[in-house]
Amino acid sequence: MLRRLSVGVLGLLLAGLGSAASSDEPPAATPLGFAPGAASAFAPFEARALAMPTPDQARAWLRTLTEEPHAAGTPADSRTALFVRDRLREWGWKVEIAEYEVLLNYPVQERDGSFVAPTLRLTRPHARVLPVAEPAVAGDKDSASRDAFPAFHGYGVSGQVAGQVVYANYGRPEDFAALERLGVEVRDKIVLVRYGELFRGLKVRNAQKRGAKGALIYSDPADDGYGRGDIYPHGPYRSSGSLQRGSVQFLSLGPGDPSTPFGPSVKGAKRLPIDGARGFPTVNVEAWERETGLKRDDYFATIPSLPIGYAAARPILDALAGPNVPAAWQGGLPLPYHVGPGPAEVEFATRSEYQVRPVWNVIATLEGSAEPDRWILVGNHRDAWVYGAVDPGSGTAATLEMCRALGAAVKAGWKPRRTLVYASWDAEEYGLVGSTEWADEHARELDDKAVLMLNVDSAVAGPDLDIDGVPSLRELVLDAAGAVRDARSGNSLRAVWTAHRRAEWARRDALDLPDPLWGDAGSPPVGARFRPHLNWLGSGSDYTAFVDHLGIPALDVGFRGKYGVYHSIYDDFTWMEKFGDPEFLTHAAAARLYTAVAMRAAGADVVPLRFLPYGAALREHVDDLRRLAVRRAREKTRGADDRPPDEFEGLRPLVAAVRAFQTAAATLAQAVNDALMRVERALLLPNGLPGRPWFKHAVYAPGLTTGYASWPLPGVRQALLDDDPALLKTQLPALVDRVHAATAAMQQAADEAAR
Amino acid sequence: MLRRLSVGVLGLLLAGLGSAASSDEPPAATPLGFAPGAASAFAPFEARALAMPTPDQARAWLRTLTEEPHAAGTPADSRTALFVRDRLREWGWKVEIAEYEVLLNYPVQERDGSFVAPTLRLTRPHARVLPVAEPAVAGDKDSASRDAFPAFHGYGVSGQVAGQVVYANYGRPEDFAALERLGVEVRDKIVLVRYGELFRGLKVRNAQKRGAKGALIYSDPADDGYGRGDIYPHGPYRSSGSLQRGSVQFLSLGPGDPSTPFGPSVKGAKRLPIDGARGFPTVNVEAWERETGLKRDDYFATIPSLPIGYAAARPILDALAGPNVPAAWQGGLPLPYHVGPGPAEVEFATRSEYQVRPVWNVIATLEGSAEPDRWILVGNHRDAWVYGAVDPGSGTAATLEMCRALGAAVKAGWKPRRTLVYASWDAEEYGLVGSTEWADEHARELDDKAVLMLNVDSAVAGPDLDIDGVPSLRELVLDAAGAVRDARSGNSLRAVWTAHRRAEWARRDALDLPDPLWGDAGSPPVGARFRPHLNWLGSGSDYTAFVDHLGIPALDVGFRGKYGVYHSIYDDFTWMEKFGDPEFLTHAAAARLYTAVAMRAAGADVVPLRFLPYGAALREHVDDLRRLAVRRAREKTRGADDRPPDEFEGLRPLVAAVRAFQTAAATLAQAVNDALMRVERALLLPNGLPGRPWFKHAVYAPGLTTGYASWPLPGVRQALLDDDPALLKTQLPALVDRVHAATAAMQQAADEAAR
Repeated sequence: MLRRLSVGVLGLLLAGLGSAASSDEPPAATPLGFAPGAASAFAPFEARALAMPTPDQARAWLRTLTEEPHAAGTPADSRTALFVRDRLREWGWKVEIAEYEVLLNYPVQERDGSFVAPTLRLTRPHARVLPVAEPAVAGDKDSASRDAFPAFHGYGVSGQVAGQVVYANYGRPEDFAALERLGVEVRDKIVLVRYGELFRGLKVRNAQKRGAKGALIYSDPADDGYGRGDIYPHGPYRSSGSLQRGSVQFLSLGPGDPSTPFGPSVKGAKRLPIDGARGFPTVNVEAWERETGLKRDDYFATIPSLPIGYAAARPILDALAGPNVPAAWQGGLPLPYHVGPGPAEVEFATRSEYQVRPVWNVIATLEGSAEPDRWILVGNHRDAWVYGAVDPGSGTAATLEMCRALGAAVKAGWKPRRTLVYASWDAEEYGLVGSTEWADEHARELDDKAVLMLNVDSAVAGPDLDIDGVPSLRELVLDAAGAVRDARSGNSLRAVWTAHRRAEWARRDALDLPDPLWGDAGSPPVGARFRPHLNWLGSGSDYTAFVDHLGIPALDVGFRGKYGVYHSIYDDFTWMEKFGDPEFLTHAAAARLYTAVAMRAAGADVVPLRFLPYGAALREHVDDLRRLAVRRAREKTRGADDRPPDEFEGLRPLVAAVRAFQTAAATLAQAVNDALMRVERALLLPNGLPGRPWFKHAVYAPGLTTGYASWPLPGVRQALLDDDPALLKTQLPALVDRVHAATAAMQQAADEAAR
Repeated sequence: MLRRLSVGVLGLLLAGLGSAASSDEPPAATPLGFAPGAASAFAPFEARALAMPTPDQARAWLRTLTEEPHAAGTPADSRTALFVRDRLREWGWKVEIAEYEVLLNYPVQERDGSFVAPTLRLTRPHARVLPVAEPAVAGDKDSASRDAFPAFHGYGVSGQVAGQVVYANYGRPEDFAALERLGVEVRDKIVLVRYGELFRGLKVRNAQKRGAKGALIYSDPADDGYGRGDIYPHGPYRSSGSLQRGSVQFLSLGPGDPSTPFGPSVKGAKRLPIDGARGFPTVNVEAWERETGLKRDDYFATIPSLPIGYAAARPILDALAGPNVPAAWQGGLPLPYHVGPGPAEVEFATRSEYQVRPVWNVIATLEGSAEPDRWILVGNHRDAWVYGAVDPGSGTAATLEMCRALGAAVKAGWKPRRTLVYASWDAEEYGLVGSTEWADEHARELDDKAVLMLNVDSAVAGPDLDIDGVPSLRELVLDAAGAVRDARSGNSLRAVWTAHRRAEWARRDALDLPDPLWGDAGSPPVGARFRPHLNWLGSGSDYTAFVDHLGIPALDVGFRGKYGVYHSIYDDFTWMEKFGDPEFLTHAAAARLYTAVAMRAAGADVVPLRFLPYGAALREHVDDLRRLAVRRAREKTRGADDRPPDEFEGLRPLVAAVRAFQTAAATLAQAVNDALMRVERALLLPNGLPGRPWFKHAVYAPGLTTGYASWPLPGVRQALLDDDPALLKTQLPALVDRVHAATAAMQQAADEAAR
């Protein structure tokens, strides 16, 4: 029987390998990983489940979820947790609320519970009070709420600062380097930076590292305003008074409750003493630094910061003098931008209180029949900065529709092979807190049981499907997308997505020419053929702990579009009805796609992980580094040598390792599920990445200096970026070792299947 | 003696070939093409000549040349011609004024000689008169002149039009295609386009082809205004009322007097009858089309057009509705751009009169001693839209300083081997008219005698040296630039230029990875080594007739920078003193560089053309086409085949031909000057390019759809862009044939030297 199963598995895997090479072909009738007999039993259940999510029902969930502002830990947030729990129970899920006690800051409140707004004034060259409140908008009653947090940064610092302003573009390291070349000092200045390019916390980090005493972060109309199109309420884009709230945690250093960096925030947990007024440790700092191996000022914001709109930024920029900005720094305001310093001076004050508060993850399960100890996770956060119609309400609405469909399928007799786990996370906005603490508490169990995770966050910001994920999940998600229709075109979501990717590839990807035409021997051009791949995973949502810390394959799937109200009070039900998804058709499509992914992952006979795409992605990532190395060498050397530089040569063992990985993936024809599952785990570095041991994945991590964006092969990349040969010497063998380990895991899977 | 000379020539060529491979090395002590003995005799003459140009003298020439507005054919223009003639005579040059009678349009004048301004009104959704005049500016008395042409397009069409507006971005074919995809009709509309990306005449052409009835072309502040930096008079960039005048000739179809498309505009020349009020032929059109093989409406603007500032464009854009623009179309005005059509409606009227008028080229010579029938040409236009301090006054000032230095060198005893010809062209602004008509008249003599041409136009718009040119002149110009010091850094101009190019190359050039690392055999990466190359020649200045029509190698050399007053009244002496070159150090450096190029070219024993860079450039150009072919194939096919498409395969004979060219260039060790000179000529196509027979060069031409920008290998490129296999079938062999001919010319040169 085992013998026969192995042969069956072999066939399934071969079918999977075939489809890996033809991802833009019409989907196969048999879902990935299903034996033919199982597939025909599965089909009617899936068809009925995919017919279940409706636009009207998604609309109703969203209406309820966005009734009131519900930041993490507030009574309104608690009400949404109970609402979600009760619905899931009705639909047959086993549900519990997992409460954690986590450190959060709130804006200071008056006796009557209303929030104290920050203050912002231009003091020179003339005095002027600048607006910090989001104005109410006609036709959108929710925009006038008094319960909304005012302008505010989660995990930000309280204080009042005054001084000269320096404009520092996006606040990237290269922006500060450019200021230095211009001879502009940021020490003891207030840095004005625009949103975009990197996570906002890292803007504050870059500013405080250079001695700035405060940071104002504004939304420039070129990036996020009229420069993109019509502004709210006439259009979907950001208006001049609209604010981007958000966390200024140093996300690329480590997410989660900052008072419990290496353990779960359960009741009674040992905590780092954090100054309740200011938000960072002020006593026993040295002991903490010794114990954690971290530097306090590298890990915590220590200067006050404030998000502002372009209505407030304009008078400041208008009053700045000093050198003209470099060409790329010019934004969309109708004036020539200058870097300062001064004569513009501002004064601002922001006050928040840090307190340990309860937050509530809702965790629900539908137990698997054959492999109950194998988990398929679907997660979505529930807390919002204000109403969060897009972020995350649309995700909760769509995944609730998925949960309703899955519950009904089980009631109708479908038996998922594996256990489905649905998580409604709390306190994501502060720094992925709910998911990170839960993953911390259940780390061993997850390591043992989790097969994969589907993360959802803003499910619907517009009509365009966007998929980030590890390459081994590409076939699963595309296979599922082939089963769901796009609301507008009538084609499958897979066809629409593939056409988009193809067009981008044609427009943008590198074009490597074949050398044979010039008389050189060689292979056909690498870029001549379209191979769809998922976007690299970065960070900024709840898959982070699972992929980067625990090595669980993950997807992040949503629909994007003209989303110009991010983290403002206007991200509300009215905006969604007017602009985001007026008929809620995209919500329904999203719910169907999530349903298909979850059912196929939980139902397949062989877990639907496929590693040929991983091999191809690894090669691309290595090539990307080779390009980086060549580029660096170009900048440094006189180009006198036709040979590439030495670091380049040092990549040979890595290339050989990837080759072996590809060979193993290509010949992978026998396997068992347990061993397959270990491949991603094998990519974890036991000691984590340099300077941030919490991040263990050797292939994927958020960029150390970008925060959101992905940095494939992060250790080696960091060594190249920092020009640090010593670091390269440790990171390269470590990476090679992990690739070998993943290869060995695949070989072992094949061996076991052949036994 | 002939034998001995040949050996000497061999040595010189070998030295030249060596230096071709190391262009960023310190300059050799011996100038390119000089025998050692000759070089030591030449050195003191050159040193004295290079010491001669002074900032103060250049400043004085510019002050005189920019005293009054001097559009082509006006009395003020005539006065500048006499001024230049008299100076050259004083310096020992043989000078004549070459007068041509050419068709030009002027704005209609009142009885008192003042110009009638155009009118522009917004009529819907509300009535408003829009500004068309450039306001006078405090501290710049010249900005108030009543003699300046008002808002106006050279070779434009008179008329009054009214109607709905459509915004069409830069007015490129792809912009109109995007409008079509949006369902926006431009027929019978007034098209509003912004300056940039392509020659303005082609914007009008693209609009009229699609049935538009008028065109407004404005300067957007993102491209040319406060988006670049501080605006005039506070900074060098374009202010809101500043206008970009200019010609709307369809430059990429053929320059010169449009009433004499295939012959010189000498007195009594046969002329095409052109409607004096409207500016294009309205009688005997069919006969003309038969005779010329051109289509009237493809060759002439037939709809009225007007240049406007962003002060006038803003209310129109503000009143436009319809779809939001695609993201890349958003400009720098503080509003969301819309494409229309309407509800904005405008009415505008512009009136000019066409008349045959005299224009004056000043042609001066210093006769060569050994080879008087070999010409080294230096040219610069003299006419300006208004004052033209940068364009072209800086060029005239700098080349006058060169002429002074060259005249003094001859007086001091230097004997140029070849004849130096200096040309001060007229009516360049209307469409390269003076140079084109002169080249037409002297075509046979030029074919026989011209060795190379140095074109200057705007010599000084800022501090950064910029060189366009055919690759065979790269060694000459870099060699000369090695002998001149950069005013700011103290390094040689060559070192500064090379450092700039290197930085750009490191940042931007394609990175072809070597395949051997992946187990493929092959050569080292093409892009791993920095090879400086000149910018490709396009069009838009007076080298066009020489390179594109007559096959004479040419350079175009000037200094660029923060130039924001192009073709406005503010391009005046005050702007130059405040922003462009306050101390006139760059003018002096430019004059020295031109002097070094001219003296070396006229004095070298072997003409300083080197074809190894040409071989490398050809390979790059072919690669560029291969990339284009791959890109096209990506867009078209399903990518199902790993092989490149067939057109790609069809390039093999071309590749083989270029290989042979490279081999010939690399082994080129014997030659004589006459034969060397034929190499570039051999690249001319006897029947010219498809649809524009006037353009004959098989390798370089301005883009058919871009106007200014270069299109290397224009025939084949056009076939690929138009997706026209039949055209490819004729253009590919024609190009191959020309490359073979150039190769044969080099072989013949070698054979003759060995005789």
